[in-house]
Amino acid sequence: MNGAESLVRTLVGAGVDTCFANPGTSEMHFVAALDSVPGMRCVLCLFEGVVTGAADGYARMADKPACTLLHLGPGLGNGVANLHNARRAFSPIVNVIGDHATYHHQFDAPLTSDIEGLAQPVSRWVKTSQTAAVLGSDAVEAVTAALTPPGQVASLILPADAAWGSDGVVAELPERPERPAVTDEAIQKTAEALRSGKKAALLLTGPALREDALASAGKIAGATGAKLLCQTSNARWQRGAGRVPVERIPYPLDQALAVLEGLDYVILVGAKAPVAFFAYPGRPSRLTPEGCKILTLALPEEDSKQALDDLVDELDAGAVSPHVEEALRPEPPTGILTPESIGQSVAALMPENVIVVDEGISVGRGINPATRQAPPHDWLQLTGGSIGLGLPMAVGAAVACPDRPVLSLQADGSALYTLQALWTQAREGLNITTVIFANRAYESLRHELTNVGAQNPGRTALDMLQLDRPEIEWAKLAESLGVPATRATDAEELNRGLAMGLAQDGPYLVEAVI
Amino acid sequence: MNGAESLVRTLVGAGVDTCFANPGTSEMHFVAALDSVPGMRCVLCLFEGVVTGAADGYARMADKPACTLLHLGPGLGNGVANLHNARRAFSPIVNVIGDHATYHHQFDAPLTSDIEGLAQPVSRWVKTSQTAAVLGSDAVEAVTAALTPPGQVASLILPADAAWGSDGVVAELPERPERPAVTDEAIQKTAEALRSGKKAALLLTGPALREDALASAGKIAGATGAKLLCQTSNARWQRGAGRVPVERIPYPLDQALAVLEGLDYVILVGAKAPVAFFAYPGRPSRLTPEGCKILTLALPEEDSKQALDDLVDELDAGAVSPHVEEALRPEPPTGILTPESIGQSVAALMPENVIVVDEGISVGRGINPATRQAPPHDWLQLTGGSIGLGLPMAVGAAVACPDRPVLSLQADGSALYTLQALWTQAREGLNITTVIFANRAYESLRHELTNVGAQNPGRTALDMLQLDRPEIEWAKLAESLGVPATRATDAEELNRGLAMGLAQDGPYLVEAVI
Repeated sequence: MNGAESLVRTLVGAGVDTCFANPGTSEMHFVAALDSVPGMRCVLCLFEGVVTGAADGYARMADKPACTLLHLGPGLGNGVANLHNARRAFSPIVNVIGDHATYHHQFDAPLTSDIEGLAQPVSRWVKTSQTAAVLGSDAVEAVTAALTPPGQVASLILPADAAWGSDGVVAELPERPERPAVTDEAIQKTAEALRSGKKAALLLTGPALREDALASAGKIAGATGAKLLCQTSNARWQRGAGRVPVERIPYPLDQALAVLEGLDYVILVGAKAPVAFFAYPGRPSRLTPEGCKILTLALPEEDSKQALDDLVDELDAGAVSPHVEEALRPEPPTGILTPESIGQSVAALMPENVIVVDEGISVGRGINPATRQAPPHDWLQLTGGSIGLGLPMAVGAAVACPDRPVLSLQADGSALYTLQALWTQAREGLNITTVIFANRAYESLRHELTNVGAQNPGRTALDMLQLDRPEIEWAKLAESLGVPATRATDAEELNRGLAMGLAQDGPYLVEAVI
Repeated sequence: MNGAESLVRTLVGAGVDTCFANPGTSEMHFVAALDSVPGMRCVLCLFEGVVTGAADGYARMADKPACTLLHLGPGLGNGVANLHNARRAFSPIVNVIGDHATYHHQFDAPLTSDIEGLAQPVSRWVKTSQTAAVLGSDAVEAVTAALTPPGQVASLILPADAAWGSDGVVAELPERPERPAVTDEAIQKTAEALRSGKKAALLLTGPALREDALASAGKIAGATGAKLLCQTSNARWQRGAGRVPVERIPYPLDQALAVLEGLDYVILVGAKAPVAFFAYPGRPSRLTPEGCKILTLALPEEDSKQALDDLVDELDAGAVSPHVEEALRPEPPTGILTPESIGQSVAALMPENVIVVDEGISVGRGINPATRQAPPHDWLQLTGGSIGLGLPMAVGAAVACPDRPVLSLQADGSALYTLQALWTQAREGLNITTVIFANRAYESLRHELTNVGAQNPGRTALDMLQLDRPEIEWAKLAESLGVPATRATDAEELNRGLAMGLAQDGPYLVEAVI
């Protein structure tokens, strides 16, 4: 069998059965192999930022990697921004990046570039397969690297002659690598801090934000009075009625400082020490107060669920009933559209078990607190700060979970980076309801202009942050890409649009004009 | 003055007076400086691939660099694909890439990444300015690097604290670096080959494809019988009635081999030895026939215009009247839309001095030969093979040449990578007529599937190359982004749409359904 076929067979055998693809000439053997190898679902995307963002969303919901199929250096380049987000989310991804035939490189044909150099900054594992014979075993290495906790981006570069070479060999994946346990010392030190009577907070992310781990964290909080916090951005957060609530560190610097004020201990559970998203002149980069000690219960790659369970035992907190959110639905709002009424509409209408993809930025910031007591759901966030993740991530989440609805909360400026995702949503008939917050501005940057100390911004500067000339007609845009859509200019229209989208099986888009 | 202001003043002083921008928080001081420093035109783009593609188009038409304004690693990442094309076009570009404050790096905030690592594969010059004080002199280095023949991509990384630091110093550009002259030996050897009576071709690109250099090449051809060829892809090619015609090496391998067959000498004039765009199993990478000698008259960075003039003198060809194209217009076509009738329509209607941006791929391949005898014009091509350049390049060309119409010939699959460019065309009121070739497929890949030897492609493989489910409504899409548009389903409608677009001052789009 040729190399491409051995690669696809190896991937499918290793459980990598979904491929988000934007192929070109050098990937044609991989594409052809899809017909001879059963079991690989291949999802076509029109732009590589959609490919990589979808792979990220898929990994977050499937807890295993998809592969991507990308066309040489420029194809990878287009996918870099969302691979950056995936890297920050610890999402396992296997990139398959086609390249020229190995012997063709010396001729420096137009598409030749330093693919390994481009892959390095966004990958933990990079390798070029030199022959068909090693492709299968290289693919196993790639999948193993992707699955190595906490989850990594692996980039396998596939020269065309390795794909078409005839001596491909299928390889088998060894055991999936497990998360290492935390040390007893980490448990002891954490317990000691929690028993000290000083003010402490657990800072959770990753697997510690799944329902079962949260239940343990809730027992610890109940037994010790510790605060439960999560990062500003989290890959996947299970929340809503019946689950242990966690307070998110806000994005704005002053609000973040206020949440952490007065703490003596911040205990990291898969999280990083909290820092400002950006530096601002004369303001701190660290968010923890002077004198606050930072302890690590679990590193990102460690088994934080087990660590929380062990800590429950150590603290004799097994019998504690943790505080959980009570179910509470607001009435659907009426009147003009504001960030508040949008939050209320979502809280009133979101169905149980929905996957919320949150790239709401400034308008959407209030929706997360407003849905605390909504029916239980998963909340996926922008982990690396590179905007343009939302629409693609919704694709990946919907492909991973065909039986769950996806609600995509999307700022307009950010949506424009990867709007091609709408076409894939239509092509695959994905159950995604998108709400576009059409404020027609890079609104968050208006605040940032002041925050960084750029005084009295003038007309030219402000004009760089305005998206209203011309106004983008989002409903029309969605329809042109095959997604039915409507336009909401008041709360009643938003309620109606949201209900309509959520009632449908396929994609739907609501342009919320504010 | 702060660093950002010193940077903008230095750039404007060095003649870099146009900025294509997609800024974020770390670039807010640069944006604020636009109001305090006169003379910088800042063009907002909604995606960084538009930013870098526009900078490429601008450089090709203005013969000087624009700067870009990009937001950290992911912003640069989104611009990589079109920087790859720019690098292959030898377009001078100065990237200004914002970064976190230098002291903030250690905290590994979400947007932190290896920007220099990402910039390296697409830049000839990369530097991070550590303080405000050195920003001005670093900017001069960057502009000098960009202007160094044959034209280069320079990437200046701008940490936020260097932008807001208060000790900025404006620096001045020394003389623009000149192209080195070719050696006498190169002239002699070339003359010798041309006098040998053997079959020779001059292979031209870069400045050798400007009208004046072509006139000299035409004298050489007239005196010696040498063939005049140009690369498959060229940054800018001045052609049409009254100019010396040049035969382009075709993209399809067999056609390319046929054009070069029988040649004893290929003489490179700023060009590279001709190679296949992709490798195909069992087919050659080199396009020149066995035994053909490749001579270099001028390297890409050398003064090829002067070299051609010197060669005219050496060959005593000064008095030769070169063969030039005669003006000939076909009638506008009637009947169904085909690649041929589209070419005929363009040839019949394109105005004098138009800038043609060609990303026509499979449908558009015949338009270049069909417009040989059209009124004189500039023809800009996809130099690096990374699709998604056309719409952005049209933006840059129109900004560089506000008095000239731009005709953007655009394959539908390729247009989808950077369709956000349409909004900038509308916002800036640019005089661009876009024709989308809506064949709703990655048509060229269907041929490539066979070319690479992927036998009997199945349903799944072919489905990966189809863009017809759902069909993209291009006219509607353009209108949603502010560009008036029409849909043409036969030749008469295309003629009408094209005439309408060319008669308007602002942007217009015609969806040619074939």
